[in-house]
Amino acid sequence: MPFVSIRMAGSATKEQKAGLVADVTASLVARLGKNPAAVQIVIEEVNTENYGAGGQLIADRDAPKPQEDAHAESSR
Amino acid sequence: MPFVSIRMAGSATKEQKAGLVADVTASLVARLGKNPAAVQIVIEEVNTENYGAGGQLIADRDAPKPQEDAHAESSR
Amino acid sequence: MPFVSIRMAGSATKEQKAGLVADVTASLVARLGKNPAAVQIVIEEVNTENYGAGGQLIADRDAPKPQEDAHAESSR
Amino acid sequence: MPFVSIRMAGSATKEQKAGLVADVTASLVARLGKNPAAVQIVIEEVNTENYGAGGQLIADRDAPKPQEDAHAESSR
Amino acid sequence: MPFVSIRMAGSATKEQKAGLVADVTASLVARLGKNPAAVQIVIEEVNTENYGAGGQLIADRDAPKPQEDAHAESSR
Amino acid sequence: MPFVSIRMAGSATKEQKAGLVADVTASLVARLGKNPAAVQIVIEEVNTENYGAGGQLIADRDAPKPQEDAHAESSR
Repeated sequence: MPFVSIRMAGSATKEQKAGLVADVTASLVARLGKNPAAVQIVIEEVNTENYGAGGQLIADRDAPKPQEDAHAESSR
Repeated sequence: MPFVSIRMAGSATKEQKAGLVADVTASLVARLGKNPAAVQIVIEEVNTENYGAGGQLIADRDAPKPQEDAHAESSR
Repeated sequence: MPFVSIRMAGSATKEQKAGLVADVTASLVARLGKNPAAVQIVIEEVNTENYGAGGQLIADRDAPKPQEDAHAESSR
Repeated sequence: MPFVSIRMAGSATKEQKAGLVADVTASLVARLGKNPAAVQIVIEEVNTENYGAGGQLIADRDAPKPQEDAHAESSR
Repeated sequence: MPFVSIRMAGSATKEQKAGLVADVTASLVARLGKNPAAVQIVIEEVNTENYGAGGQLIADRDAPKPQEDAHAESSR
Repeated sequence: MPFVSIRMAGSATKEQKAGLVADVTASLVARLGKNPAAVQIVIEEVNTENYGAGGQLIADRDAPKPQEDAHAESSR
């Protein structure tokens, strides 16, 4: 009966998602004796503009900052 | 004050979603005396590539398997 | 395959929860043709100290306010 | 370690989302002493056809009703 | 950066929960190359009175039905 | 119309929760022009035995490990 929701920043291939579903279901069966037919899993691939971590959007955190980096580089 | 989240594999028409919202709100009012104005409902139509059940993606489970089916058919 | 999460402030009786589950499942079957056996519903009864609405905790919003109540009392 | 999910009807600009992430993270740090690096926030911009409030879809609630309004107007 | 929520009917031991967390994190690392330090997982052990499946509460579904069981017993 | 869910490991005081609700609501009003009356927020205080991070339960991560530490200490 378990329901699992997985939210991740960015996208995944269909193979990756199928692998995750297989692994998580197997763990619920092995660890908790759950019926695999009753396990439901939803994978949400969240745009990096909609996922924040450490106080900023991942889209901003991972973006190249040419101007500032150039300065930082030259001043090191 | 209730908040309801509905996740389903595949999509629904606007009429189906409006019907769901009407029904679920009516149930919360009738069963629990909730104020209908305060009921919020979000419906997530999840791609079948992102929804797993029984250990595999619904997209894979529902996909036609011509090769294997042909074999299965002939061996029946 | 739908998964439904219902969060509400305060508690409900077992009968109320059974009624909600019956209603919501019936709506998913009638409106969307879902298989009732695959519908999973979780009801979370949230403490009013953990549910905010309109910028304040429901526990605070619904609490008697001694000052004003005293006035109300005396003027009754 | 907190995880925050924000669901809203309609969309937001990247600046609005960055502002939300900054504010919510700052509140968790200031109010609860949480480590900002561990705060994760997901913002879901929900289509108004998928968000119900007061028993109807927001898309329907906010839609202009020319026919009916015209009648209502003339009959006032 | 993934956030995983696992909702299950009934309870689990601490060892079972630790095993689930280890397995799911390992899968996210192996399948998607995620940083294990950034994986957050919440396990919700839901009372069977608050979990519905197949249109009824699991607490009711799993409960012994004395009347019917007596009949069933006697007719076996 | 926004709905916000905040999950954190461990507990918080009522004052901390009231502060969070006030802050998050204010941010949604200031950044996005949302109606404060329509903002709903649920705070879930998750037992550290039910919250995993970095591949293990927070309850285990934060637990003192006297035996091993003693060894580690003496061997340093």
